[in-house]
Amino acid sequence: MKILFTFPLREDLKEELLDEFAGHEFLFTERGVKLGKDLEDADVLVTYGEDLDEEDIHRAGKLKWIMVTSAGVEKMPLPAIAHKRILMTNARGIHKIPMAEFTMSFLFQHAKQSKQLWEQERQGVWNRKAAFKEIYEETILVVGAGAIGTQIAKLARAFGMKTAGVNSSGNAVEGFDAIYSMDRLLEGLKDADYVVSVLPSTPSTKHVYKKEHFQNMKETAVFINIGRGDAVKEEVLLEALRNKEIDHAYLDVFKTEPLQEDHPFWTMDNVTVTPHISSISSKYLPRSMEIFRANLHTFINNGDQYVNIIDPERGY
Amino acid sequence: MKILFTFPLREDLKEELLDEFAGHEFLFTERGVKLGKDLEDADVLVTYGEDLDEEDIHRAGKLKWIMVTSAGVEKMPLPAIAHKRILMTNARGIHKIPMAEFTMSFLFQHAKQSKQLWEQERQGVWNRKAAFKEIYEETILVVGAGAIGTQIAKLARAFGMKTAGVNSSGNAVEGFDAIYSMDRLLEGLKDADYVVSVLPSTPSTKHVYKKEHFQNMKETAVFINIGRGDAVKEEVLLEALRNKEIDHAYLDVFKTEPLQEDHPFWTMDNVTVTPHISSISSKYLPRSMEIFRANLHTFINNGDQYVNIIDPERGY
Repeated sequence: MKILFTFPLREDLKEELLDEFAGHEFLFTERGVKLGKDLEDADVLVTYGEDLDEEDIHRAGKLKWIMVTSAGVEKMPLPAIAHKRILMTNARGIHKIPMAEFTMSFLFQHAKQSKQLWEQERQGVWNRKAAFKEIYEETILVVGAGAIGTQIAKLARAFGMKTAGVNSSGNAVEGFDAIYSMDRLLEGLKDADYVVSVLPSTPSTKHVYKKEHFQNMKETAVFINIGRGDAVKEEVLLEALRNKEIDHAYLDVFKTEPLQEDHPFWTMDNVTVTPHISSISSKYLPRSMEIFRANLHTFINNGDQYVNIIDPERGY
Repeated sequence: MKILFTFPLREDLKEELLDEFAGHEFLFTERGVKLGKDLEDADVLVTYGEDLDEEDIHRAGKLKWIMVTSAGVEKMPLPAIAHKRILMTNARGIHKIPMAEFTMSFLFQHAKQSKQLWEQERQGVWNRKAAFKEIYEETILVVGAGAIGTQIAKLARAFGMKTAGVNSSGNAVEGFDAIYSMDRLLEGLKDADYVVSVLPSTPSTKHVYKKEHFQNMKETAVFINIGRGDAVKEEVLLEALRNKEIDHAYLDVFKTEPLQEDHPFWTMDNVTVTPHISSISSKYLPRSMEIFRANLHTFINNGDQYVNIIDPERGY
């Protein structure tokens, strides 16, 4: 059995694999290089999901399974994979812990005035006057109450927060005190101290936050976006922030990434910019390899209980 | 009944009091002014606990109860209060929520590299490379497993952390996976990723962290002090940080406060300085007044079930 990684694996994870699957051939290429003859003999391909094209799939004559070590498969040559009936799996589910932790870090930066404290430290100033708040008993609204959103609610609740969520159905979700359907979004936003947008980019979630949503939020409210940048039109968000309709926006995702150098978000006092990193964690690859190893056992044993099968025709 | 506050109370809290205790006389002075004739007639004194001297106690001929709206009473004229058998209560217990939240904010600043992200934002740099970690499955050691320490452990556990604590007895405490007695401190420190010192200043906790403690901690460990600065000799901590024996120290308390302008802590890369603010919160005074109001009802009704009675001879 020949297993081709289109990236170099961390040494400790590599050793684990070679140990557990002794007798099978593992190959690791540098990222971004054109795949050579090895592709033609590979039974299994492991990829981050951004480096394969249709021609690669056609050249891979023996390929039976592609493991994508991320959640998104939108950059994969899906029709070719569907046509050749190649099994595809991904690493869905490994984002919830780092993303929920990252969200909580934004809540604390805000409540504990971390930026002011850092600035004072830079200047060597001892000043105890600041608007320190607690997140205890505050209300968080998680827009997108899926796996990641539910993990956020679980943590928020441990801090004594009131938890509300928004999903498409409006059906109750464990861990949320209240769930609003998408068409009642405005209602949920009105009561929220912290709004966390975890929405993916789909036709129905594009530009879902409108001018009137921000106008109806509390003036002290915080808007956090860790989902996708196009959930809100930039002009709408900029205007809301310039008019001080909300207190602060913490943005990890943007319409265009990297965020343009001259973009006003960089320098606005009531905006914090981070470079799309909420899911990055030293545990990302180990967790992804855990899924891969479970599936590799299934593959070798001709089983059929795969974790995270993706239908290439649907794309999820 | 005459109730004298030695500070001006927030307008909303004042109205609440006047409403609930209509018919009683409330007086509010500015902070730091010498108390006048009102002191002689006051039945009840409400103070932050830093503005009374022995003479005041002797002048206060009608005084029967002093409410201290903080936790520490070490700056009160305790012998005079004991001698005159004046009832004393404090606001013990209202610090755990803000202090536990503040501790978690330090953990997240560290794991999510907030300072690096913030510096990149200042410079308008989009850079996704940083050592982002999770606190999930990391080990926290809380030195001082009392009310505040237990609240920290409760939150840490909600994030999937392993929780260990240190107290004087070594007896188990709910919320901690393991408890070490003070003489086994070194053992607990060896395994910890995050060490949180919540120790007060007492003869037995002074300079409790020694050179060998830091030498035996993980190189990646984080030391957080929200208790009292004298739990560790500054020279010991400075040397450990200069030798990179641990990764970072987050310090909210110091031997001398304010921290001297030219102190090396201000500018060290592996130190974060905050100005003794872990317990400050917009909810501090409301919580303190809640205790006061309960006790004032008891006082008016000649009851004896007071919350947080302090023995002036013991000082707690």
